[in-house]
Amino acid sequence: MTNFNFVCPVPDPLVDFVTQSHGAGGKLSQELIDKVFLPAYGNAILATKSDSGELAVPAKPGRLAMTTDSFVVRPLVFPGGDLGSLAVFGTLNDLAVQGAEPLALTAGWIIEEGFAICELHRLAQSMGDALRRSNVQVIAADTKVVERGHGDGCYLTTSGVGWIRDGIMMRGDRIQSGDRILLSGTIAEHGMAVMTYRNGMEFAPPLQSDCASLWPLVKKLLEEVPGIRVMRDPTRGGIAASLNEFAEASKCCLRVWEEKVPVRPQVQRACELLGIDPWVVANEGKLLVVVPKDDADQVLHIMRSDPLGVEGAIIGEVDATHPRKVIAQTRFGTHRIVPMPTGELLPRIC
Amino acid sequence: MTNFNFVCPVPDPLVDFVTQSHGAGGKLSQELIDKVFLPAYGNAILATKSDSGELAVPAKPGRLAMTTDSFVVRPLVFPGGDLGSLAVFGTLNDLAVQGAEPLALTAGWIIEEGFAICELHRLAQSMGDALRRSNVQVIAADTKVVERGHGDGCYLTTSGVGWIRDGIMMRGDRIQSGDRILLSGTIAEHGMAVMTYRNGMEFAPPLQSDCASLWPLVKKLLEEVPGIRVMRDPTRGGIAASLNEFAEASKCCLRVWEEKVPVRPQVQRACELLGIDPWVVANEGKLLVVVPKDDADQVLHIMRSDPLGVEGAIIGEVDATHPRKVIAQTRFGTHRIVPMPTGELLPRIC
Repeated sequence: MTNFNFVCPVPDPLVDFVTQSHGAGGKLSQELIDKVFLPAYGNAILATKSDSGELAVPAKPGRLAMTTDSFVVRPLVFPGGDLGSLAVFGTLNDLAVQGAEPLALTAGWIIEEGFAICELHRLAQSMGDALRRSNVQVIAADTKVVERGHGDGCYLTTSGVGWIRDGIMMRGDRIQSGDRILLSGTIAEHGMAVMTYRNGMEFAPPLQSDCASLWPLVKKLLEEVPGIRVMRDPTRGGIAASLNEFAEASKCCLRVWEEKVPVRPQVQRACELLGIDPWVVANEGKLLVVVPKDDADQVLHIMRSDPLGVEGAIIGEVDATHPRKVIAQTRFGTHRIVPMPTGELLPRIC
Repeated sequence: MTNFNFVCPVPDPLVDFVTQSHGAGGKLSQELIDKVFLPAYGNAILATKSDSGELAVPAKPGRLAMTTDSFVVRPLVFPGGDLGSLAVFGTLNDLAVQGAEPLALTAGWIIEEGFAICELHRLAQSMGDALRRSNVQVIAADTKVVERGHGDGCYLTTSGVGWIRDGIMMRGDRIQSGDRILLSGTIAEHGMAVMTYRNGMEFAPPLQSDCASLWPLVKKLLEEVPGIRVMRDPTRGGIAASLNEFAEASKCCLRVWEEKVPVRPQVQRACELLGIDPWVVANEGKLLVVVPKDDADQVLHIMRSDPLGVEGAIIGEVDATHPRKVIAQTRFGTHRIVPMPTGELLPRIC
């Protein structure tokens, strides 16, 4: 499925394909680590090959955040990203929306026997690039191999720890009536890029995943706007799922002005073709923020000054009319309840 | 494959089998969390359903340890353990041998479409039992579903963070000539239990995995013996792999007295039947420790006073005769080099 043209980046692969022995903890496992993973994202901590990586805790007072995600995206490489970069950015974003500065990541690979080592090399390199761009390291890793027919190329589980400095507290139950809801840009790009690419649908230019680290934008927001109630990166289930989680946690009504939610025309067309509501489609580089009304303009200004948020918008407000519900208000003045998506249509987009 | 008799513990399963929608982040994902995972190992942190779990850092000075392992053991349930307990103990042990007190774990499930929800429930319950016995919590989790034929029931990736208090430093390069090597008990039990059970080989009584948390034993050792050089839980690749890693890191020769390495007769017979050297077989509840000569007797005493180490033994010593090599000394006075195992024979034992 990964049919982008690329030249095998390993000039002298020790073997061409992953075998079960590569996952059995012996010599071949070591070779895979030494020739594929360490060159891609090695560092002094990983090079110790200890059972655990060690790291110092920041000197400033605060607490730890910890997160994990298993990535089973199919295809492994898609326009705008791949399994490696998606795992890094996805994990960093889960920390970021908690208000946590990333400290370190881990990587657990589950590889299907017969997977091409040069493809693995490519994914690992992409992971390394994403890590370097984000100034964070993988400090512990594991590799397992499963028999042919018991995997799908490879799966990757990344976990992350981050540091939440004192005073930051992101929680859905802090949302109050009167608050404003902001979104950092156009929605549904990751999910539709993967879906259309997987189904062989061609667009010119191709739909691109928005896969990116939100931490630089979040860092600015945390420094400038202490009042932020909660943030979320609306991945699986899209903004519909995140907004419903907010409504549930706060027992408030989240009212969203439909025409304020930015969707690229091409993505909108792809959604219409496939009969999918863009609100339920995954994003991998977008930020939902709920803030007190008086902070909304400042948050919008910071968003729009950042490359990740130039199309940011105030998309709605919180009130007490329909507790625990998300209401979409159309441009014609009509209303509809936005349910928690059931998700049947969009498997394996992350 | 999981043919132990058991009664489905979910009296009213919402559906009988996992579908792709259970992994898509919507309503069914929430139901799986609410009805299977939270009852099994829920806690106040996990119940917030945030993208990251939060935890406080211990007040004592120290540093963080972080580890990850993907578990693909087959079958999912085996004598002495299952995927859920193995993942918890395996991750705790990786922290323990680094000298780290466990703080929290994460869990990432990759489930194959069609997997029985009552089996998932059983594995999650077992995970919860192991967590409660170890007094540690899962504070972040993720669930993905892959299509039929792209998994094998389920895979589980657990990560852990722990706290290494100041003064503790476990590193293979601290090993010196004259040091003693200790082992906490009989070897090869986990790997042979899984292998023989998978191959339908029956023993009476059946071979049991040694799957257990080493932290209680390690905690005592750290408190009593500040001089410990390094510890390792010899999992994949067995003691042969761990000893070779020590030899490589220390540039010393590790000399092991073969008759001092305890192996249960039944396990020895199973190894002979399958033509496998017990030294290369995985353990999941055994500890290798290297200490200065003068500390060896104290370590042995502590081991033997602990339920996990009653068959502990001093199995060898470190010298400078064959740098970076592991030498087994037989009861007849002959010697052989113990190579790093290649691992062909023992896939998917963890």
